[in-house]
Amino acid sequence: MKVWESYIRKVEPYVPGEQPKIKNVIKLNTNENPYPPSKAVMDALTKVDLDSLKLYPDPEVTKLNEAIANFYGVNKNQVFTGVGSDDVISMIFMTFFNSDKPVLFPEISYSFYSVWADLHKVPYETVRLDEDFNILVEDFNRENGGIIFPNPNAPTSKYLELSSVEEIIKNNQDSVVVVDEAYIDFGGESAIKFVNKYDNLIVVQTFSKSRSMAGMRIGYAIANENLIKVLNDVKFSFNSYTMNRTAIELGTAAINDKAYFEECCKKIVATRERTMKALKELGFSFPESKANFIFAKHKDVPASLIFTKLKEKNIFVRYFNKPRIDNYLRITIGTDEQMDALIKALKEIL
Amino acid sequence: MKVWESYIRKVEPYVPGEQPKIKNVIKLNTNENPYPPSKAVMDALTKVDLDSLKLYPDPEVTKLNEAIANFYGVNKNQVFTGVGSDDVISMIFMTFFNSDKPVLFPEISYSFYSVWADLHKVPYETVRLDEDFNILVEDFNRENGGIIFPNPNAPTSKYLELSSVEEIIKNNQDSVVVVDEAYIDFGGESAIKFVNKYDNLIVVQTFSKSRSMAGMRIGYAIANENLIKVLNDVKFSFNSYTMNRTAIELGTAAINDKAYFEECCKKIVATRERTMKALKELGFSFPESKANFIFAKHKDVPASLIFTKLKEKNIFVRYFNKPRIDNYLRITIGTDEQMDALIKALKEIL
Repeated sequence: MKVWESYIRKVEPYVPGEQPKIKNVIKLNTNENPYPPSKAVMDALTKVDLDSLKLYPDPEVTKLNEAIANFYGVNKNQVFTGVGSDDVISMIFMTFFNSDKPVLFPEISYSFYSVWADLHKVPYETVRLDEDFNILVEDFNRENGGIIFPNPNAPTSKYLELSSVEEIIKNNQDSVVVVDEAYIDFGGESAIKFVNKYDNLIVVQTFSKSRSMAGMRIGYAIANENLIKVLNDVKFSFNSYTMNRTAIELGTAAINDKAYFEECCKKIVATRERTMKALKELGFSFPESKANFIFAKHKDVPASLIFTKLKEKNIFVRYFNKPRIDNYLRITIGTDEQMDALIKALKEIL
Repeated sequence: MKVWESYIRKVEPYVPGEQPKIKNVIKLNTNENPYPPSKAVMDALTKVDLDSLKLYPDPEVTKLNEAIANFYGVNKNQVFTGVGSDDVISMIFMTFFNSDKPVLFPEISYSFYSVWADLHKVPYETVRLDEDFNILVEDFNRENGGIIFPNPNAPTSKYLELSSVEEIIKNNQDSVVVVDEAYIDFGGESAIKFVNKYDNLIVVQTFSKSRSMAGMRIGYAIANENLIKVLNDVKFSFNSYTMNRTAIELGTAAINDKAYFEECCKKIVATRERTMKALKELGFSFPESKANFIFAKHKDVPASLIFTKLKEKNIFVRYFNKPRIDNYLRITIGTDEQMDALIKALKEIL
């Protein structure tokens, strides 16, 4: 072994949901939106000024932050943008969770929280969920150095009522509380309405799900100006230019087309309700979903088997071989046609 | 003070070179390329498939990595791509410099090295330069946990002959040695030719300077397959999707247009030689530059004064108020017309 090999960081590589390169697959495994981005995004793309690409982008991401602020009725200094919500949340861990007390998040939740905690050497503890995967507000009433949870939760799809979210924020005013709302636009109510009421609240959202732009890597945080300023200070201290010019232009066009966004969300919710009904008839059970996916188990057939059989039929869903959830499939809501094909395939398999 | 305020990371925010929002400025302050990207980039832009943007990008950045590998005659598994070379180098610090021994870099160098060392809690020591800003190969002959230096160095513009670069690599086979070649295409010779000879070498380059694409945020590392694999493992462990779809498409188009790239570099080198001559006649002195900038001081007039006077004339250059270099200006090479305007303005000021 070379000496320098002993200096290499030890990691467990994450295995992302497959991005199959073959054509004609039905891809219901990474919670992408089945609909293309707004046509305004294409217009923005063709209008990108070639000459401008030679210059560094605006490190303050002014144009996109203003558009996001405008959409949510907040001030532009209340918005921070990053390379997907992964980048935003990692930066939040780095910025706000520097205490000796543990950061708290649900035991079943987005798998990267523990990764970022380790990365930034932040201690953490997980908080139990009840047997129906509910987050229990009172379980967060213990000493902590910060709190983060997704709402709706992933991969369970469970939504926590906004009054309960507010209770967690109110009970933990000594910590920064982060609500990760990647899936909020599919039926939940956002905690953004509280950012001016609670100075310890950060709400994180993404363009990857409801705004059909996973391919452009755009996530954002909304909070009071003070928290956003600190987040920017940390960002500028080590990498000033993270958002490229096309992300800024295309993201702005996407968020400005509110009508199309609402139409897509409405279609996905309608397809979800149909799909839940059909899955129930096939013997599946699942928490009521407020996300763009369903977290389902079958009464007789093991999830791992269904997962494999679906894959043989070129239908990709997500399976997690982890405690408590190893008999569930996470199924992204696609188009009506895709879900019909899924149901047909499931009928054949079961 | 709120309790959570005590958990906030303390940083010194970096102040990037100004990106003035007013029009009609001559911008010679951030080492951007004065020429637009290749027309092939515009073609690629208009050909981006709107529908594809709903899907996550290829986490392995295969298409762009293949194009880069093809350009340099290496294997695609020898290429790692990131969000600008800042992202790539930060990831290298995180991955390869986990020892108790100090990482070494020149005392006058890219200011982010110490920032990333602090960020990833890596100890470091700086290595002195001689009075003409030369890197001294023998000064790196001491115990270390890694080495990084830019070639040509920034902001001094000094080029280290490839034989000396090789000596540093050869003398330090217990460490990973990183050669940061952001400016190599303006007259230097790349150490990429050594990546199959030395398994401890990583060469980092960027699309931001010679490839006219600072606005797209693309940087890359070339090394042996083993080092690149480890770098990917670390990347995938905490953020799988950093390169968005447009960066992958536009970057590929740019690197494939070799003729245009060579033409731009040639023009910039010619303009640099003319400019050095004109500056000399005005009483400036500077190291011989192999970069797309000149690091100049005037025999009589303080750099800070010239900086301010140029700014009043809407000409932006870079001034660093730091020990040993606080009487120098870093002047990016623009077009011939821009440099003529600079020389005219300097004549008026002096």
